[in-house]
Amino acid sequence: MECQDYSLSRNTERDNLNLNPLQRGGVLPKEARKALYEFSDGYSVCDYCAGRLDQISKPQIHGFLDDLASFINVDHARTVHGAREGKFAVMHSLCKPGDTILIDGNAHYTTHIAAERCGLNMVEVPHTDHPEFKITPESYQEVLDNQLDRGGEISLVLLTHVDGNYGNLTDSSAVGKIIHKTGIPLLLNCAYSMGRMPIDAKALNADFVVGSGHKSMAASGPIGVLGMKDEWADLVLKKSLRHAVKEIEMLGCTSRGAPVATLMASLPYVGERVEKWDVEVQKTRDFVDKMEKIEGVKQLGVKPKEHDLVRFETPVFDRIAQDHPRRGFFLYEELKKKKIVGIKRGQTRWFKCSVYGFSEDQMNYIAESFKEIAGKYKNPS
Amino acid sequence: MECQDYSLSRNTERDNLNLNPLQRGGVLPKEARKALYEFSDGYSVCDYCAGRLDQISKPQIHGFLDDLASFINVDHARTVHGAREGKFAVMHSLCKPGDTILIDGNAHYTTHIAAERCGLNMVEVPHTDHPEFKITPESYQEVLDNQLDRGGEISLVLLTHVDGNYGNLTDSSAVGKIIHKTGIPLLLNCAYSMGRMPIDAKALNADFVVGSGHKSMAASGPIGVLGMKDEWADLVLKKSLRHAVKEIEMLGCTSRGAPVATLMASLPYVGERVEKWDVEVQKTRDFVDKMEKIEGVKQLGVKPKEHDLVRFETPVFDRIAQDHPRRGFFLYEELKKKKIVGIKRGQTRWFKCSVYGFSEDQMNYIAESFKEIAGKYKNPS
Repeated sequence: MECQDYSLSRNTERDNLNLNPLQRGGVLPKEARKALYEFSDGYSVCDYCAGRLDQISKPQIHGFLDDLASFINVDHARTVHGAREGKFAVMHSLCKPGDTILIDGNAHYTTHIAAERCGLNMVEVPHTDHPEFKITPESYQEVLDNQLDRGGEISLVLLTHVDGNYGNLTDSSAVGKIIHKTGIPLLLNCAYSMGRMPIDAKALNADFVVGSGHKSMAASGPIGVLGMKDEWADLVLKKSLRHAVKEIEMLGCTSRGAPVATLMASLPYVGERVEKWDVEVQKTRDFVDKMEKIEGVKQLGVKPKEHDLVRFETPVFDRIAQDHPRRGFFLYEELKKKKIVGIKRGQTRWFKCSVYGFSEDQMNYIAESFKEIAGKYKNPS
Repeated sequence: MECQDYSLSRNTERDNLNLNPLQRGGVLPKEARKALYEFSDGYSVCDYCAGRLDQISKPQIHGFLDDLASFINVDHARTVHGAREGKFAVMHSLCKPGDTILIDGNAHYTTHIAAERCGLNMVEVPHTDHPEFKITPESYQEVLDNQLDRGGEISLVLLTHVDGNYGNLTDSSAVGKIIHKTGIPLLLNCAYSMGRMPIDAKALNADFVVGSGHKSMAASGPIGVLGMKDEWADLVLKKSLRHAVKEIEMLGCTSRGAPVATLMASLPYVGERVEKWDVEVQKTRDFVDKMEKIEGVKQLGVKPKEHDLVRFETPVFDRIAQDHPRRGFFLYEELKKKKIVGIKRGQTRWFKCSVYGFSEDQMNYIAESFKEIAGKYKNPS
């Protein structure tokens, strides 16, 4: 058959400094690359399956799930295809079409789509105004009271632990405390936190947590984590009437392939790196300090940063773009000359970036590069 | 943190002749291994995403999906996480809880689980008796008439193109013709056929087809294919009200990682290999001939074989097991000495196997090995 050229190489993104926050937490350590090689072929993890993926003992998926459950302090852990599939599984098993759920104003679009797929109504807890865009427990209390006062029922409450727009860290523990007074369960979306920072689901007062292997757990996608308290397991992990060992919401088995092997291989590495989260946060704060020294660059979201994802407003680059022959593409192109990628082509008014996992020197080089580009056009030579 | 030893190697299965039918169609060609390396890291295929996975142009996912749609003759193709997730997406968008669907008596367990997850009632079209276990268009007609006569409504009809128990190939074209007189859509499960044999969804009278990358398309799991006729696209690929470009049933995006890169890299290879399907079928028939020359070995399912998955009844090995000090394990262990794996440990009464993709010499060696093992215990030396 005739096939097109699919451009199946990724040298640019692999060989350069990639600032895309989506990519920073998913870089594989060598152990995971080896696992990927071992389990490349098709249904490779299923050689010794006796009917349940989560009970396979070679590779040791069963033991791994126990370790994973301890790592995030939940009673039960499963791998799913990603955080969104985890959210969908929880919504689908807990809610009926027409039900109402509470979500935060910084929720990821996949929270909306998962709810829409389940036919749910969403009531949004608003964030504060520019420039903080903060989600507070007080707003949760207010919106919750408001709903209940009006006689509305709420089946589930969702909170984004760290959002993907501003990298704001929310106070899940406080939100959970408020929610639990009503008996409603809390689902915490940890796609940007689990695997970067320590997660203790019970201390965070979360009934459910979802995480993303490819986003933040040094795994090859697609793979995610769904953790839950014991009291919800009967419902969410309900077994088939016809096939007694198969869990319905998991469609029997989920991660039947290489991604789970990479997540397993990476767990010890991820377990170590979350212990150094304070170093990452400090590096991000230093980066923000350096960037904000450039006139016309301002960090949005809560200050000081409590997460590596940073959103900058950058009128300085937008002004340059207006007169530049390459218009908005100039920034991407100037950065690329300096071997920096991951800022979307054409974007100059604002951008998101992350220096997670880079060395101190690399972070300094990146900040210096932005400064040089801004300087070059301020005083064109 | 303390982690267990997860046994993350797979030498035995990679280095020996693996007869597991689940594994034969998922072995990666070198192009796919290279793609796996390039796209190992996390969200690797999403570098140049503008909002929709299926529209990404680097790697060329968009062009690939066009080629894939041509390859199986459907109007729209999407990648999903596997055949089961494809079946669920179709059921979930077409049916309401409480609806009734028709399925065949050889349906894969994931068809049952997907239906159960959607709250559907299943009416089964029975297979014929031992030893053929055949699904016929006539039975579909009979069960359908029966249902409609009783005033029952049917939302969807499913047919397993090639089942995983006997490897029987069904007559989808004839079943589709029967079904379409009533206006009910047909979903054809091609997990064991797409990527092994040529699939022409329109000639097969299927409104939907699902395929499995890891099972039969030389891809690293989990990944599957969902193809459909244009008339169903508005419903199954319905877009979000809130995020205008995102498809709800796909939860926005599906295969955000390495598996889609391997499926893409393998498509030209898979496109070529399906053209040699008749050679594979002939090899399977030769294998069955040789195996049946062993007294106490009998092929189940339709004869002659029209697919590489073969189920044998093997009372000869079961008799040996009864007196053997290693009991049922003897067969697995004897085979392993001959560098043959993929028959479940302990299984001797019957087993499933496949010589798909092996050379003529390898197939002969495998058949000869079974013969030798049977002979050794018939006339123990």
